[in-house]
Formats: sequence, structure tokens, C-alpha cells
Amino acid sequence: MSGMTVRFAQIVGADHLQTGAAIAEDYWHDEELTQPPQAPAYLAKPATAEEVAGLLTAASQHKVAVTARGSGCGLSGAARPVAGGLLISFERMNSVLEIDTVNQVAVVQPGVTLTELAAATEEFGLRYMVYPGELSASVGGNVGTNAGGMRAVKYGVARHNVLGLQAVLPTGEIIRTGGKIAKVSTAYDLTQLIVGSEGTLALATEVVVKLHPRVEHSATVLAPFADFDQVMAAVPAILADGLAPYILEYIDNVTMAGLVHTQHLELGIPDQIRDSCTAYLVVGLEGRTSGRLDEDVERTGGLLAELGAVDAYVLDGGAARKLVQAREKAFWTAKAIGADDIIDTVVPRSAMPNFLTAARDFATAAGGAAAGCGHAGDGNVHLAVFLKDPVKRKRLMDEIFSLAMELGGAISGEHGLGRAKTPYYLKLEDPAKLALMRRIKQSFDPAGILNPGVVFAAD
Amino acid sequence: MSGMTVRFAQIVGADHLQTGAAIAEDYWHDEELTQPPQAPAYLAKPATAEEVAGLLTAASQHKVAVTARGSGCGLSGAARPVAGGLLISFERMNSVLEIDTVNQVAVVQPGVTLTELAAATEEFGLRYMVYPGELSASVGGNVGTNAGGMRAVKYGVARHNVLGLQAVLPTGEIIRTGGKIAKVSTAYDLTQLIVGSEGTLALATEVVVKLHPRVEHSATVLAPFADFDQVMAAVPAILADGLAPYILEYIDNVTMAGLVHTQHLELGIPDQIRDSCTAYLVVGLEGRTSGRLDEDVERTGGLLAELGAVDAYVLDGGAARKLVQAREKAFWTAKAIGADDIIDTVVPRSAMPNFLTAARDFATAAGGAAAGCGHAGDGNVHLAVFLKDPVKRKRLMDEIFSLAMELGGAISGEHGLGRAKTPYYLKLEDPAKLALMRRIKQSFDPAGILNPGVVFAAD
Repeated sequence: MSGMTVRFAQIVGADHLQTGAAIAEDYWHDEELTQPPQAPAYLAKPATAEEVAGLLTAASQHKVAVTARGSGCGLSGAARPVAGGLLISFERMNSVLEIDTVNQVAVVQPGVTLTELAAATEEFGLRYMVYPGELSASVGGNVGTNAGGMRAVKYGVARHNVLGLQAVLPTGEIIRTGGKIAKVSTAYDLTQLIVGSEGTLALATEVVVKLHPRVEHSATVLAPFADFDQVMAAVPAILADGLAPYILEYIDNVTMAGLVHTQHLELGIPDQIRDSCTAYLVVGLEGRTSGRLDEDVERTGGLLAELGAVDAYVLDGGAARKLVQAREKAFWTAKAIGADDIIDTVVPRSAMPNFLTAARDFATAAGGAAAGCGHAGDGNVHLAVFLKDPVKRKRLMDEIFSLAMELGGAISGEHGLGRAKTPYYLKLEDPAKLALMRRIKQSFDPAGILNPGVVFAAD
Repeated sequence: MSGMTVRFAQIVGADHLQTGAAIAEDYWHDEELTQPPQAPAYLAKPATAEEVAGLLTAASQHKVAVTARGSGCGLSGAARPVAGGLLISFERMNSVLEIDTVNQVAVVQPGVTLTELAAATEEFGLRYMVYPGELSASVGGNVGTNAGGMRAVKYGVARHNVLGLQAVLPTGEIIRTGGKIAKVSTAYDLTQLIVGSEGTLALATEVVVKLHPRVEHSATVLAPFADFDQVMAAVPAILADGLAPYILEYIDNVTMAGLVHTQHLELGIPDQIRDSCTAYLVVGLEGRTSGRLDEDVERTGGLLAELGAVDAYVLDGGAARKLVQAREKAFWTAKAIGADDIIDTVVPRSAMPNFLTAARDFATAAGGAAAGCGHAGDGNVHLAVFLKDPVKRKRLMDEIFSLAMELGGAISGEHGLGRAKTPYYLKLEDPAKLALMRRIKQSFDPAGILNPGVVFAAD
């Protein structure tokens, strides 16, 4: 055994450290599509913050690269290990420590999955509202990527739902930030700096998340439109009306056909309407009473008609659930039908029509294709890119990201940069901001051990 | 003229630079109660981000301390200048640059006041929901302190309503962070790091703020309680019910008496009820239709009765407005009746009863008194402290802040640390966090020019 192996094993116990060939292949990657799997040299499964601190202290001393892993369902490669590095899996730190109904928060360890958290909160009539679609996702992963999802249009993304952290600095100190408090104006907001930093600044070992009261009644309205611009014009109109939908998604006709086909959806839309429309808007509504919900559904239907929808279908419970689940599985559908890469660019929602038209034109011009769906209320565009040639594909991605940034957007709205999108980011971002962020990184991680190759180039 | 005067005058124009005795006394302070006014050596009124960059570059080169000032209505002394330093007033950068109805954002310069922004958004049926009470406050000041206010219980604080910034680094670079986008998972969230940093990291020269649709119908319910613990128990019950009040305030009987007296309120509460109750809960409700509002008001009344309220009064429009305005002026009332300092500590709302009881006991034991009101939904306790002896008062404040932090809270929920609360903070905060924040500060401001004495000790 090498000296590092002995040291790490002393910290987490020999049973919870694996090395080399003993590390199962599942740990070599997350769900990002383009990068080859990479085995880490060490896999540690700590049980406490103190063990994490021990691992990071040892790694800092010996300049061992460290990658954190929640459930491994990330889509940008932030959890793909580094050759020769240490992978810290939070699978043993998976306790719901507290459901606090007075403060309406949960305190959980990072390895808790969304399914587990939903089960723990249900009896209290409370819910954690970050819903990236993949329910095996961990809360720690949500923190790392600043996860979003369909409900963000009403409830915000992870950033808005994470109130506090216990986190371990790469230098081994264990700090607490924020807490069971919704607001604080006391020095710098370290919580918000760590959320979304993709394991490059500090590792969360405890997370305080906001819970919302469960709303009893919900409905889903599906509206086909002949023209994509009309879909986009409908979005601000619905939001301005104060209807406060908790889902506001568009799905283009190519993607809808894929979802219907792979997920066997029965949406009850006549063929002639389906064939004549280019995109769909999905509006999820919820109400404290069934009367209010019915009223809002009716109002939404009327609004959609005014806004040019070909029709508006109120889906019954089963069909609605299936459509939303199918939408959540859009990534798997894209993967199944051979997508070569995926994009989750965010732009101001006013820029979505221009952005989407241009992105599709770029893809066609490059000899490929791009189709997708997205969080229309948030300007968060999910595109599956079909283009086999990696050189051409990189050029296409460059074009698309560059346009998004010119339009006032950013490369990722919710997946994070990871190892896959970092190279594009480094090319396109303002050098003054990059230099500042490098100094911030340095202030947390002087040895540069945390997730090299993510946000910054690996040395 | 000194060399620095010439240099600053070249940047902003001689008409927009004042020095020494020419600087009006209003610029020597903000509204913080305890610190003596301090004249700056220079007062510059830049008109553009480039001028701000020029000022900061020159100040960095010559190690001149720089303090930013919005409207000067801060309550912690973050805008009080440093002797020999430069005060940058944003009063000339006061344009509303854009009201964007599709993205529901406004883009404004930092000197725009809340009154001006409200006037600019009104015709579009949109509102900026940060409402710290003082409508002469500037958006730039909101950014600096992460301002809160009564509506935060529903709409969040400045942090949740600032989507992007143009900001000038002390090293002179002008950067843009975030944008007209509600979510982003692309490297570190510099917006959220700068919001609440009280002018110690970078100066905002443009702010993108979220706007919400105006809600037509609103009502205010006032409920007296015999027992303070009942008030606190009512808060989570109301929130869990999903009523989503936009105001949820408690006012203790001492403070209510002060408000009624100084603001000549007519609330229609019989003397015997007033005399028998120790605190009031104010519940502000809004609804998309008058029918829904009436329903919610009724439900709230019922809930309050179940929760032990002595009664529940639906205030008529005039009385409600007066009460809310009086509550907004609580600081001025406290000042008028001779408060020696004020506190805006935040604790988990479950800890409010213990915290308040202990804080009042500490004050009594020290020979003084503490009374107040606060944002019950947020755990944000506003106390006026009456104790003349500055040494005893400091000891009392130490005790109170120390308890708040032990209870999982923080020194300030919305005012910021400023020059007044920084010494307490430095004594009570975890040294590992302080060291990390000092390194972050250094990564923005290597020359240490921005607001020395705020968040960190002045050299």
C-alpha cells in the first residue's frame, strides 16, 4: 500500500477506502455524454465532516486532486474523477438530520437523495421544491451544481432554497454558513459562493434547505402553437397576469414526437393539430382550493387562446403526470435517440426565439441538428445536439455559447460547467472576471486540489 | 490643490469634486445612531462607470480609503466616510435605464431611489418588491446592505431581487455579473458575493432588479395577543397554511404605544384589550381578486382566533396604510424617544421568544431597556436599546449578539454590519471564517481601499 492509501484508510477506515482496480466503474463518470470514464486512484466514503476534513487536509499536503460525488447523475462531468486523484463519495452521509416544521427547513447530509427527502418531509405537509427531474439526485449534488428544474419558475433554484451549510475547506477547517434563517446581512454570503461552485471551493457536509407547504390541488394545461414566437410571447403574458404557474415549459415538435414515442404518451391531441404545430407550452398550476385551481385553469385557457394557441388541453391526472415525467426524462430520450451532446444554456427569455432559431440554423449549417425543450419561464434552453464529428461539434458549441453570452445569457442555467463545458467557458468569459474568480478559488483552495479542470483549466 | 485633488477632479470634472470644508455635513454620516460624523477629504460625484473606475484606480495607487454612498439612509454606518478618504456619492448616477416587461426586470443606476423606481414601473403594472421602509433609499444602497423590509417574508430580500450587476473592482476593471436571467450555474456567483458586501469588494454601477406583477387587492389584519409566545406560535401556523402573507410583523406593546402616540394612529382597539395584550401580529394579505382576498382574510381571522388572538381587526385602507407607515418609521420613533442604539438581529424564528425574553432581561439587568418590533416571518428582530452608558451598552450588545449567534442567528438581518456593528462581529465570528473572508476581500481589493473598518478592522 502506498503512503497515501494508508493515510486515507486511517481517516475513513480501511472498509471505506478503495483503490485502483477495486473501484467499480460506476464511480468513473457521471452522466455527461462526451467525456471518457476515468478511474480515480482512491475512492473514500467518509461518514463525518471530520473525516472529510481529514481527507482534504491530507490531500492538500500531498497535492492529490479531489473530486466530490453525490449520486453521480450530473450532466456536465463535474463528478468525473481525475487520474491519480481521490474521489469522495457522500453515499454514507445520507441522513435526514432534522425536519424543523417551525422554521420550515430540513437539515440533511449531502448524500440524501431527493426521493429520501420527499419521503421524510411528506408527513409534515412540507416539500423541498428543487426538482431537477432526476429524483436519485442528492442534495449535495444540488448544492454543487445549483440545480434547477421545472419548478424553478415559481420556487427558484437550489441557490434560493439552500439557507445554510456546514462545509469543509480544502485546508481542513469546518465552517458553518447561514442557518435556519431566510435572510442575513452579516459579512459575505459564503453559502451562495459555495452553492454552484461544483466542488471547487469547499465540500458541503450538511445542508439546511427551505421547505414549502404542500399545495393540495394542481393541474396541467398543454397548448400547441403553430408558431414558436407565439409560445415565447405567451410566457411573459402568463407571468404578468399573476397566475404564478409552477411549471412553464416549452417542448418543440421534434422533442414532443420523441417523448410521445419513447414514453408511450396518450395526450389526446388530434393528428391534424399535432402536424400543424411547431411547439407546445406546458403550464402547471396549483391552488390552495380546487375552486381557485379551476378558476386559474380556465383563465389560463382563455389567455392561451388570446395568445394564439391552436387549442388548450387540460390533461387528466395520469396523462399530466406522464407528460411531466416524460419531460423530466428528456435527457434520457435525447441519449436514447443518439444525441452527441446537450446544452442547458440560459438567456433572457425575450431572447429565446432568436437564440433558438440561430442555434438550430448553426446546427443545420454544420451538418447536424439541434432540438429540445426548456424552462420557458426561466429562459433556460435545453438542446440535444446531433453532430458526430467532434471537431465540428466543438465549433458548433462555441458558436451557440458565444451567441448565448452575446444575448446576455450564460453557458449553463442549471447543469454547471463541469469538465465538459469548462473549456468553452474559459474561451468566452471576460478575462477580468476569470482572473478575479481564480483569486477567489485561491483564497479557498491554495493547494488547488479541489476538482481541477472544473471552472478552471487543470494545471 | 493637492495632487490627489487634481487627479480626482480630472476624472469627474472639477464641478463634481469637493474637498475639505466645502463638503456639506450631510455627507459626513448616514443614519446610524452611535458614531460621530466624519468629514471625508474628498467627495466625488461620478456620472459613469468609467469615472468610478478612474477614481478607484487612482485611490488604489495612492492608498486612499473609499466609501460609497447612496442616499445616506443606512443604519449601520457603512456610508460614514473615513478621515482622509474619498466619498463617492452616486447621486448623479440616478437613471432608470430600462423597464423590460418581457423579462420583468428593471436596469437602473445605483443612485435611483425606491420612490423613483416605483414611479417608473407603475405604468407597466410591475413593482420592485424590496421595501426597507425608507423610500428615499437607493437601489445601490439596497445592494450594499442586502436590504430587506416588511415584504421580504413573501418576496425575499435584495439578494433575491438583484439578478445582475455592472460593478467596478477596486483595481479599476468594470465587470458584468448575472443579467436579465433568473438562474445561472456558470462559475461563481459574483452577484451574490457583491450584494451585501457593504462597499468592501466592488462598487455597483448598474443593477438589474427583478420586478413582480402588481397585485390589485390587499388587506391588513391586526391581532392583539395576551402572550408573546402565542404570537410566535401563530407565525409558522399561518405560513404552513399557505396563506402567503406579504407582511407578517410583530409589534410589542411598548413599541405600539410609541407608534400610536407619535403617529396619531386610530386603530379602533378598545382600551381594555390594548391594556391586556403584550404584543400584536400584523398580517398583510394580497389577492388577485377581491373574492380571494376576502376568503383569505376570513381564513386568517379564523386561524388567529384558534391560535389564541384576543381579537382580529381588519383595518380599513386608511388605518392599514397608517399602521404600515408607522411601522416603517419605527426607527424614527425609536430615535425620537431617545433610543441609544438599534439592533436588527436575525434568529431562526423558532428562537424568537427565547431571544426576545433574554434580550429584554439582559437590558433590564444592565439598567436599561429594550423594546421593538420585527419581521416575525423572517426571525428578524428589531430592538431599540435604551442605555446611556456606552461601556455598559457595548457589554449589553455583546451579550445580545452572542446569544443570537448561539441560537443559530446572525448580528444583522438587513442593516449590515457597517462601522458600528463590525467590532462586535469580529469578536464573535469563527476565526476560520474571518480568515477566509479576509482572503476573499484581498482577492477583490489588494490595496485594501474599499471601506476600511467595515466587515474588517481598519488598519
